[in-house]
Amino acid sequence: MNKKQDFSGLKAVYINCTLKKSPKTSHTEGLMNVSMNILKSENVAVDYIRLSDYKVPTGLLPDMTEEGADKDDWPKIYERIMDADFMIIGTPIWLGEKSSVATKLIERLYGMSGKTNAKGQYIYYGKVGGCVITGNEDGIKHCAMGILYALQHLGFSIPPQADCGWIGEAGPGPSYLDEESDAKNNEFTNRNTTFMTYNMLHLAKMLKENNGYPNYGNSREEWDDGTRWNFENPEYR
Amino acid sequence: MNKKQDFSGLKAVYINCTLKKSPKTSHTEGLMNVSMNILKSENVAVDYIRLSDYKVPTGLLPDMTEEGADKDDWPKIYERIMDADFMIIGTPIWLGEKSSVATKLIERLYGMSGKTNAKGQYIYYGKVGGCVITGNEDGIKHCAMGILYALQHLGFSIPPQADCGWIGEAGPGPSYLDEESDAKNNEFTNRNTTFMTYNMLHLAKMLKENNGYPNYGNSREEWDDGTRWNFENPEYR
Amino acid sequence: MNKKQDFSGLKAVYINCTLKKSPKTSHTEGLMNVSMNILKSENVAVDYIRLSDYKVPTGLLPDMTEEGADKDDWPKIYERIMDADFMIIGTPIWLGEKSSVATKLIERLYGMSGKTNAKGQYIYYGKVGGCVITGNEDGIKHCAMGILYALQHLGFSIPPQADCGWIGEAGPGPSYLDEESDAKNNEFTNRNTTFMTYNMLHLAKMLKENNGYPNYGNSREEWDDGTRWNFENPEYR
Amino acid sequence: MNKKQDFSGLKAVYINCTLKKSPKTSHTEGLMNVSMNILKSENVAVDYIRLSDYKVPTGLLPDMTEEGADKDDWPKIYERIMDADFMIIGTPIWLGEKSSVATKLIERLYGMSGKTNAKGQYIYYGKVGGCVITGNEDGIKHCAMGILYALQHLGFSIPPQADCGWIGEAGPGPSYLDEESDAKNNEFTNRNTTFMTYNMLHLAKMLKENNGYPNYGNSREEWDDGTRWNFENPEYR
Repeated sequence: MNKKQDFSGLKAVYINCTLKKSPKTSHTEGLMNVSMNILKSENVAVDYIRLSDYKVPTGLLPDMTEEGADKDDWPKIYERIMDADFMIIGTPIWLGEKSSVATKLIERLYGMSGKTNAKGQYIYYGKVGGCVITGNEDGIKHCAMGILYALQHLGFSIPPQADCGWIGEAGPGPSYLDEESDAKNNEFTNRNTTFMTYNMLHLAKMLKENNGYPNYGNSREEWDDGTRWNFENPEYR
Repeated sequence: MNKKQDFSGLKAVYINCTLKKSPKTSHTEGLMNVSMNILKSENVAVDYIRLSDYKVPTGLLPDMTEEGADKDDWPKIYERIMDADFMIIGTPIWLGEKSSVATKLIERLYGMSGKTNAKGQYIYYGKVGGCVITGNEDGIKHCAMGILYALQHLGFSIPPQADCGWIGEAGPGPSYLDEESDAKNNEFTNRNTTFMTYNMLHLAKMLKENNGYPNYGNSREEWDDGTRWNFENPEYR
Repeated sequence: MNKKQDFSGLKAVYINCTLKKSPKTSHTEGLMNVSMNILKSENVAVDYIRLSDYKVPTGLLPDMTEEGADKDDWPKIYERIMDADFMIIGTPIWLGEKSSVATKLIERLYGMSGKTNAKGQYIYYGKVGGCVITGNEDGIKHCAMGILYALQHLGFSIPPQADCGWIGEAGPGPSYLDEESDAKNNEFTNRNTTFMTYNMLHLAKMLKENNGYPNYGNSREEWDDGTRWNFENPEYR
Repeated sequence: MNKKQDFSGLKAVYINCTLKKSPKTSHTEGLMNVSMNILKSENVAVDYIRLSDYKVPTGLLPDMTEEGADKDDWPKIYERIMDADFMIIGTPIWLGEKSSVATKLIERLYGMSGKTNAKGQYIYYGKVGGCVITGNEDGIKHCAMGILYALQHLGFSIPPQADCGWIGEAGPGPSYLDEESDAKNNEFTNRNTTFMTYNMLHLAKMLKENNGYPNYGNSREEWDDGTRWNFENPEYR
């Protein structure tokens, strides 16, 4: 059972929602690299997007140039997301919350959620999602709550322990990549990052081999056409 | 593709975290019934637990009688949970939060999380989780964030759209089962409840047929024994 | 300006929502003591309640014996809360959330919220609230979000920096009172605890001297009688 | 007691964090207007900022042109905020969360938090904060939790019931300004909006007359100089 699996053929997309543009140091990228390095060793293709390096306006339209934006890189980023079997969102923590860039990413993902796949299901069905979170002091779990909630609500599947991260003790202090934090040797962070990465692979592989979810009981298109499967409208008595 | 699936052999457990004991009306139970009725029509075994009807002390021990509690029904409830392939937590909303009974349930689930399965993985691996939430006015998503986060962190898998619920317009007003709410005819609630139910079934079936997750890359026991798969400890440069 | 203030005459109530009964060690109590010691030096009366030592059933009634509970210590605890000028809620963190005991406390506070004071305002108007949070690793801010939100929604006022706490680095580890955590020397925690404590005193004193809030524009009773002050119902155009 | 108060001389700033630029309809603006109209009748000066109409880059610097941004309107917006006695943040809800624009606003406010006032306190001490939230279906309380938490943590004071909003029944539907929602006649929303507005006025007036908070026990500068008031470092025993 515990033998090596063949994950080749799987594709991942990692989206870093740091507030900083390249080439400034992103501590979140530092921890995302730990996960991406596992994927490379497992022969899994990885696409990495640092969202702040792109021009992505806020808004809910699939392409915000239709509402006056000069430029919108989102349509191409969306294609890269759709090309992947699983997506990891990375974010720093500010005041206990995920970054505004991560919030904008979720809004833009949501802006595509009217689309359906060939089976009439919401467009993200069959994809798997997780998150990587870093900060100085507090908030991994709260940021993960918001990100993982949004992903599953949009149609992604969440494997066990899909959140990992690093924070230091309460109060200001060194960040993940700072040597004095010794964060790279935090066994809890390393274990969670490893388990998250492998669980993304396992569930993505399982769903891919299964051709996603059967569309019995979950097709938006069929629901709209009146199909109800075994749902029965409850009655007032 | 969209043909009827065979879900027989699957088992579900539904845990209602209303503050009220039987036989008082639980609106959350009302919406849970919509989901459970689908399962019955699909020949899936359902176990239903109204937690407030049991004696479940707060605490983190597997059995709180060891710390002085008169009685603890948790060990038996835990067995019923372990006997199921998926678990749905139902909760009412108070001040935008899940109930204290739901919070206690998550604490008790967490109290067992030192256990591992035969593959050395955390004990809830291979199980699937979701939630049903009702309230007068506000908070489905926030309650779902906390519940689904906890479940995935403990080892459950979350299928697409694993949260459903009903709330009325801002302000006090009728509840789910009150006829004047007309909540039973809320198409959004009915659709989400249906999709959640079927997605629980699909993922639970897939995981069961797969015998859960392979333990390559996610075994706590092997990690503790020094196995690292393709994780490499990052270095400071 | 920065001279010593006279806070004598003020009364505080501290409610510890640890899951553990006395005499088990509560790390949260450890940090609450730091704040309470300041109050003692400032000649402020402090009432301390460890909620798990009392019999407080879940529920929304002012007295749950009316719904079948054997005993309900809440009515007396409520009196002690009403006797104080400000209230500090202490809680440990489990899976990034405040304890079920803290959630139950908020539900019981909410259960009294139909009451109004002599000015027709909600009953907690004029009181001040804050929180103290401890855990091994993560979640001070998220717990504070929920507690402070609830308090202000119920009518408490929140002074600047009303949240303080201690957590260690990501992962399991020593707790606040464990010597190896060296938490007592965390300057950030000590500073925030100090500022919180003094800001509670300043705002409580100011409100007490002001006899709470004038009831112009915020009296539930007058609103129900039709008074609207300068609110004008908006129109559809 | 319940006689008209004189609020003249107070200044308010309202910041709308809709994703949409002018002149597109903002439902959140619709509800903010209800509150601002009360202020006008009370002779309170109101400054209104629709943040999406400005060029405000993401980042943590006081002026992001120092890090390569073409333009940064934040320094002028910050001056307008500092000129006001209280601030109301308005936000729409997307997937149960405040908008990315609101998150960015909080990040920019946080970017100024190293500053102190003439008393050595954090720069926002003495100011009062609240929020107005609108959405189709769910999330007022969760959005308010994050916003009010951040404001108090930064130094704002929060009066009773500082959150108000409107949402419709679960599921998609008309928005606040849509006539078919009949939201303008929602008594709960109108009452909460009124109480919030007046409580902002009362607390802002009280703090202004008091010249903010005394800096006994809460001056960052004095703490850094070694002053501890009655805080005593706890000891390990």
